[in-house]
Amino acid sequence: MRAEIISTGTELLLGKTLNTNVFYLTSQLTGLGLEVNYHTTVGDNKERLIETVRQAFNRSEMVFLTGGLGPTADDLTKEIIAMGLGLKMSFNPESMTSIVNYYDNKDKLPPSSEKQAFFPEGAEVLPNDLGTAPGAIIEKDGKYCVVLPGPPAEMKLMFERYALPKIQALLGNNTLRLFVRTIKVFGLGESELEQEISDLMHKSLPFITLLDKHTYIDLRVTVRSSNEDLARKILDQTEAVIRGRLGNKVFGIDEETHSQVIGKLLRQKKLTLATAESCTGGLLGGRITAEAGSSDYYLGGAVSYANSAKLKLLGVNSEHLSRYGAVSEVTAKEMAEGIRLALGADLGLSTTGIAGPGGGTKDKPVGLVYIALAHSQGVIIERKQFAGNRDSIRNMTVETALNILRIFLLQNPL
Amino acid sequence: MRAEIISTGTELLLGKTLNTNVFYLTSQLTGLGLEVNYHTTVGDNKERLIETVRQAFNRSEMVFLTGGLGPTADDLTKEIIAMGLGLKMSFNPESMTSIVNYYDNKDKLPPSSEKQAFFPEGAEVLPNDLGTAPGAIIEKDGKYCVVLPGPPAEMKLMFERYALPKIQALLGNNTLRLFVRTIKVFGLGESELEQEISDLMHKSLPFITLLDKHTYIDLRVTVRSSNEDLARKILDQTEAVIRGRLGNKVFGIDEETHSQVIGKLLRQKKLTLATAESCTGGLLGGRITAEAGSSDYYLGGAVSYANSAKLKLLGVNSEHLSRYGAVSEVTAKEMAEGIRLALGADLGLSTTGIAGPGGGTKDKPVGLVYIALAHSQGVIIERKQFAGNRDSIRNMTVETALNILRIFLLQNPL
Repeated sequence: MRAEIISTGTELLLGKTLNTNVFYLTSQLTGLGLEVNYHTTVGDNKERLIETVRQAFNRSEMVFLTGGLGPTADDLTKEIIAMGLGLKMSFNPESMTSIVNYYDNKDKLPPSSEKQAFFPEGAEVLPNDLGTAPGAIIEKDGKYCVVLPGPPAEMKLMFERYALPKIQALLGNNTLRLFVRTIKVFGLGESELEQEISDLMHKSLPFITLLDKHTYIDLRVTVRSSNEDLARKILDQTEAVIRGRLGNKVFGIDEETHSQVIGKLLRQKKLTLATAESCTGGLLGGRITAEAGSSDYYLGGAVSYANSAKLKLLGVNSEHLSRYGAVSEVTAKEMAEGIRLALGADLGLSTTGIAGPGGGTKDKPVGLVYIALAHSQGVIIERKQFAGNRDSIRNMTVETALNILRIFLLQNPL
Repeated sequence: MRAEIISTGTELLLGKTLNTNVFYLTSQLTGLGLEVNYHTTVGDNKERLIETVRQAFNRSEMVFLTGGLGPTADDLTKEIIAMGLGLKMSFNPESMTSIVNYYDNKDKLPPSSEKQAFFPEGAEVLPNDLGTAPGAIIEKDGKYCVVLPGPPAEMKLMFERYALPKIQALLGNNTLRLFVRTIKVFGLGESELEQEISDLMHKSLPFITLLDKHTYIDLRVTVRSSNEDLARKILDQTEAVIRGRLGNKVFGIDEETHSQVIGKLLRQKKLTLATAESCTGGLLGGRITAEAGSSDYYLGGAVSYANSAKLKLLGVNSEHLSRYGAVSEVTAKEMAEGIRLALGADLGLSTTGIAGPGGGTKDKPVGLVYIALAHSQGVIIERKQFAGNRDSIRNMTVETALNILRIFLLQNPL
C-alpha cells in the first residue's frame, strides 16, 4: 500500500520548528510495511492545502495528515479533506462531550471549541488524551485518510493508542514488514564501496542503500517480508557476504559506534588505554568516555595543546620537538609513548595535526595529521591528509585514531 | 519570490534519518525574505522525482533541492533537473579537476566520479569543500533551481559559502527582509525566562520566540522590514532592554558560543587556561579548542579519568582522594590547582562528577558534579546536581564550567 504524509502548519515553513512528526510517522509506517513515497509540508493556506490533499489521494492509498486540528480560524485540515473528497461535515456529539470534559468547568470552554467536534461524514474519531483536538480516520472509495494533531506528544499518543490498532486491522495480519540492518563501514569512499558491492545493489531483495555519514558510511540492507525468520536469514546472509568482501572495514552494526566497538575489544582483551591529544584537544577522550563503563579500560590522557604541555605532561624530547615540529611523526610517536608510560597503560594513542583554518604551510598544509599508537612491542604511526574545515578535520582525526586502534586490537594477539 | 524545497533520498522515506536540511534551509530562506510555500520529500525514483521537480517549477520562482549528487547510480538529481527543464547535460572540466584533487592520488579516483562533473547546461557550479559532490545554480526563464548535496555538513557549508552570496545578489535590495538577533541565555529555565520578559513577548514588532537548546536558551528577536537601519535600531534597543534585565545570564549573540566568548575574554586579559577533566573525559578541552586560534590562551590539560591518572598527572593528594572520593569538593579543587601548577597556567578549570547511568549512590547520585576554577588568588568550587542522561549531564557540565569561567573573567580585574 502506497502511503504519504502531509504536514500542515505555517511554523514549519518559517524555519522555526523542526518537523519531527514526519520522521516518527515514517518510521512507524515503514515498520508496518507501508511504502511511504512522499512527504509534503504546506502552510495553513486553503488553496494550497486542497491541491495537496487532492494530489495525495490521486497517487496514494493512505494519506496521513498532521496539524490544523485546533480551534482557531486557520485550522482547516478537516474541512479541506471534506472538500477534497466531496464529503459533508457532520457534528459528533461524543467528541463534543470529551472536549467539554477536558476543561475543568464549562465557563472556560472557548466558543470556537465546537468546531473541533465537526468531522467529514463517516469519519471514525480518534480521541486525543492530551488535548482538545480529536483526530479521525476517513475512508472514501477504498482509500484512507488519517488525520492527527500537530503537537508531537499528542500526535504520538493518538497514533500509538488509537490509530495504529485500526491501521493494523485494515492491513490484516499478513502484512509485509520492513527489516533493516545497517552495516557501518570505515575507510572507503561512497563510490569505492559501491564498486565493491555493485552486484548486490540495485536489487529489490535485499534492497541496499548507501548513506555517507561524513566520517563513515552506513550500508543499509532492507528486506520487506511478512516472514520474520526468512527476513532475518536474508539479512544474516547478506551481512556475511559483505563482511567477507570488506573485512575489517566493517566496524559495527546498526547503532554501534566506533567507541563502543573499541570498548568491547579492550574489555575482552583486558587492556587499558591512555590518550595524548593535540589537534583534537580532548575530543578523542570525550568520544571514548561517551560509553558508560569506559573507566574499565580508559585511564585518561593529556591534552597537550601547547608545546610546553607536550614537554611537561608527556616528556616529549624538546630537541626533537624544535627540530621536527609539533606536527611530525616523531612528536606523534613520543606523545603516544609518553602517555603510555605516564599512566602505565597498555596502549597509548596520540593525535597531532593542523586543524586550520590558519597554521598551514606548504610542507605542512591544513589537514595534515599524524596518529600514533604505542603498545608493548612498538609504535604504529600513520600520516593522513584530511580535507574539509576545522570541525571535519578534527572529527576525521578522532574516527581514524579509533579505527587504527580497532584494527590493531583485531589483528594483534596481545 | 515564492520558494520551495525538495529533499531527495530514500533514507528519508524509511524513517531512519531526520530531515534537518529542510529546517536549516527554510530558516535561511525566510531570513532572506523568500516565501517558502512547500517542502517535498521524494525517494530516489526517477518518475516521481521528475514529476515533483516539474510541479515545483510551475508554482515557485526558486526551487531548492538537496541530495542525489553522489557518484552512484541512484544519484539522479542533476539529470532529472535537466530533463524537467529541457536542458542538456554538459561536462565541467574545472569540477573534474577539483574532484581529482580531492583524492590524494589519481589511482584512488573511482571511475564513476566523472558523473559528478556533469551539469545541466548553463549551470553555475557551487564548489563542495567537504566532499566530491559539487552543487549548482541553474536558471531557466527567470526561475532558479539551487542544487545542494544531502550530507548536512556539506550542504550548510556550500549554502553559506557559495549559494547565499549568489542568491542575495539575485534578490537585490528592495525586498522585505527578515532581521534576526539571537540572544543566548544561560542559567534560566524557559518559563523563568518567559516570566522575566513577558511584557516583551506576544508582540509582532519585534517578534520574540524562545528556543530551548537544552544547555541554554536562544531568545530570538525578529524584525521584518525593508529598512535595514530601522530594523537594526529596533534589534539594538531590544537587546539593550533584555541585557539590562538578564545581566550576566546573556552569554552571547547570534552564532557566538560559550567557548568563543571565553576565548575572547582570555585573549583580552592575556590569561592562559588549563583543564583537568574527569566526568567530561576531554569534552571541555574539545569544546575550547573548537575555536581556531585557541592555542593563544589554551595550554592543554589532563583527562584524569582513572584515580591513578588524578595522582600521576595532577598530583592530587592520595589520602584526600581515598577519604573524600573522586567526586568531591576537595578533589575538584586539587585537580584545578594541580593542572594550573603542572602547566604553569593562569587559570585551572576542573570537572569531576557521576555521569551515569551506573555509579550513583544515595549520597552521591548520578548527575552530581563538582566544578572548580583555580586562579592566582584562590579557588572557586561549585557543586551541581544535573538531571538527564549521560550525554546531557556531560554537556551541562561542560557548559557550566565555561559559564563559571566566563563570570569569573567578567567580574575579576585580574
